[in-house]
Amino acid sequence: MTPYELIRAKRDGAALPLEALRGFVAAYGRGEIPDYQMAALCMAVFFRGLEPAEMRTWTEAMLRSGTKLRRRNPGPRRVDKHSTGGVGDKVSICLAPLVASCGLVVPMVAGRGLGHTGGTLDKLSAIPGFRTDLSLTEAERVLDELGVCMLGQTAEIAPADRRLYALRDVTATVDSIPLIASSILSKKLSENLDGLVLDVKVGSGAFMRGRDEAQQLARTLVDLAWAMGCPAVAWLTAMDVPLGRAVGNASELLEAVDVLRGGGPDDVRTLTLRLGAEMLVLGRQAASVPEAERRLAGAIADGSGLERFRAMVRAQGGDPEVLESPVALLGPLETREVRAAKAGVLAAVDTLAVGLAAVVLGAGRVRSEDRIDPGVGFTLRRRPGERVEQGEPLVSVHHRPGTDVRDVCDRLAAAFLVADRPEPTLPLLVDRLEVRPS
Amino acid sequence: MTPYELIRAKRDGAALPLEALRGFVAAYGRGEIPDYQMAALCMAVFFRGLEPAEMRTWTEAMLRSGTKLRRRNPGPRRVDKHSTGGVGDKVSICLAPLVASCGLVVPMVAGRGLGHTGGTLDKLSAIPGFRTDLSLTEAERVLDELGVCMLGQTAEIAPADRRLYALRDVTATVDSIPLIASSILSKKLSENLDGLVLDVKVGSGAFMRGRDEAQQLARTLVDLAWAMGCPAVAWLTAMDVPLGRAVGNASELLEAVDVLRGGGPDDVRTLTLRLGAEMLVLGRQAASVPEAERRLAGAIADGSGLERFRAMVRAQGGDPEVLESPVALLGPLETREVRAAKAGVLAAVDTLAVGLAAVVLGAGRVRSEDRIDPGVGFTLRRRPGERVEQGEPLVSVHHRPGTDVRDVCDRLAAAFLVADRPEPTLPLLVDRLEVRPS
Repeated sequence: MTPYELIRAKRDGAALPLEALRGFVAAYGRGEIPDYQMAALCMAVFFRGLEPAEMRTWTEAMLRSGTKLRRRNPGPRRVDKHSTGGVGDKVSICLAPLVASCGLVVPMVAGRGLGHTGGTLDKLSAIPGFRTDLSLTEAERVLDELGVCMLGQTAEIAPADRRLYALRDVTATVDSIPLIASSILSKKLSENLDGLVLDVKVGSGAFMRGRDEAQQLARTLVDLAWAMGCPAVAWLTAMDVPLGRAVGNASELLEAVDVLRGGGPDDVRTLTLRLGAEMLVLGRQAASVPEAERRLAGAIADGSGLERFRAMVRAQGGDPEVLESPVALLGPLETREVRAAKAGVLAAVDTLAVGLAAVVLGAGRVRSEDRIDPGVGFTLRRRPGERVEQGEPLVSVHHRPGTDVRDVCDRLAAAFLVADRPEPTLPLLVDRLEVRPS
Repeated sequence: MTPYELIRAKRDGAALPLEALRGFVAAYGRGEIPDYQMAALCMAVFFRGLEPAEMRTWTEAMLRSGTKLRRRNPGPRRVDKHSTGGVGDKVSICLAPLVASCGLVVPMVAGRGLGHTGGTLDKLSAIPGFRTDLSLTEAERVLDELGVCMLGQTAEIAPADRRLYALRDVTATVDSIPLIASSILSKKLSENLDGLVLDVKVGSGAFMRGRDEAQQLARTLVDLAWAMGCPAVAWLTAMDVPLGRAVGNASELLEAVDVLRGGGPDDVRTLTLRLGAEMLVLGRQAASVPEAERRLAGAIADGSGLERFRAMVRAQGGDPEVLESPVALLGPLETREVRAAKAGVLAAVDTLAVGLAAVVLGAGRVRSEDRIDPGVGFTLRRRPGERVEQGEPLVSVHHRPGTDVRDVCDRLAAAFLVADRPEPTLPLLVDRLEVRPS
């Protein structure tokens, strides 16, 4: 079957011969299929979808275009978490070292922020000297020593996915559930895992704003991971309001460290404990979620989670002492308040608009080559449901001295809806999906 | 609107802002939009279609990427015919000089054969020295002198279409009615016409096998041509059997010349007269189709159509004397008969299979870079409805001495269905479409 015939078959809704599909994706990874044929195929997939067997073949071919992280046998079990992205989501930073401090290995391949969402690598990069560009050999050394590392997708990890993601980004073929699922899992399964927890965001700040769509993505991810031999659990979690109070790379990093110190906002702490507990159960370090949550709380209380994070920062080239001096980390900032125009209740937050305002401020990027300012950001002063008087601050904007932030403030003022009555919001933990009984 | 946003809008079924669409197609023609973005857009168009205004804008942008043929003002009216392609369709070759000999200008930009269909340029190229690669300036000189020329799509004629057609051919986005219509008209309207006759083939040897689909293409073409200021008429004509008796480039050329000499198969002659009559009416050289057919028959009878063709061959670098010696034109050939396995009636012909057998024989091409042999081909010895005895020839295969033609003969034997009773066939002239009353 030629590349042409394969594109045509998918276009016409026919089942693809799996060997031909595997060959197509592998050849694309080697640069032997031109971008225009892959772009046409992806658009056909957008309209026609992928059957489960096709999705598995596609994902495996992307995975095999690169190298898996080596693992010691026998060694501790390996688990990871993936979030589909949102505003203020800094959970990975506290979660990974915390779970590692409970005896599992967390080899986290993470991403940069794009569009309205932040990225774990950007938050870590606020630490001077911290290297996210570890080679697989370097990552394996850090993992052997500490059980945790956080790195970006190198040229060794699923290079076919790397090339494909860049192509999808410019051909309007990003928001296809089969392509999203195969991209996520080709990277994550390169980590050679025993279990994966998926945090699928839903709400105004998520890529999947609607619950049905988020549920469908979560189901696809869980089924595909299991089909590829990796036990997985997915949580649908709320992204109709930013997570925590800090939005901005360095301030989100500090908020995650607060959780490891036993503080931090309730939602960040709750989500960290629940997702971590799922990881511990998948990694057979606990028999139940409540038992696992107690172990994680213990690792916060005795400081072993924080210590593991500090050791990881050191191992990846950063100086953890910088976490003790927020002013040095953030640099010179001025603050301007966005205030309530009238008294009432904070009824809703347009979280997409908050994320886009952060991009305008310089905390995020529109194009992958854009540079970001790790220090700038927002602090949420009210959360939905909280009472506010006229003129009281809703959100603080931390900006570089001399910057014109009127546009940013206008966007935020429009994003925070003050009303007479609260509106219904999503519970933090919306729904849990596990493997379907067969 | 960015290229990304435009692709996304079409993908999601939104109306495209026409200025943005015009800019996208124009930039593609200049090489400023990469092939992968155009491939994604074309696949989205395959699924979503184009609105009439979008199709007009798209076609105009492709047309304006190149140069129109100059026309003398005042000068004779200019008309042309386009066929969507089939097997044995040699009508253009006799039609264009015949219509020119009746006082109109026929500046025919024609194509090469691809896949199972033949192309006018390949048939003309059987004449040694005949140049189809005229520049616009050269074509204008021949037109001024003779009122007819036949040339290929040069780099000056709708180069955006030229680039796009090659891309569609490898991305399974050829068979989309809006893209077919805009490709045809961007080339044909470069001829600066006063009228266009469209011959939309239907049946087993056509690209549009079904009548509904052919009707839809014909309607789209007529509406688009009128919307762009060019009066047009479309005929749906039969392609459930090869046209005429000759299949193969040089032998089809000779069959077309036979029509100009007053002979030729009935169907080729009938179609030539009817399409030519529509051209004469559009070009205001006749008040009605019957009157126009009488004029054309007169131009055959007095030899002026043939003389015009010979003059054109001479003007484009060929020697018309070669038409008098078929053996010299065809070269050394051997003939093998494909015979009826039983007595009965020739009930049906799989015309696609006949076209593909011609490709295997060397008369057509699979890829645009393939070379063809102008001499080889078939002669149909029976047409549907005709009686045949066991062992009588159905079709003759003219091949180079020493060639193994067993595969070709097997394909043809399977393509000719001999049965007890005839099957219903399409009338040659299936349906006529003109502009919708507004």
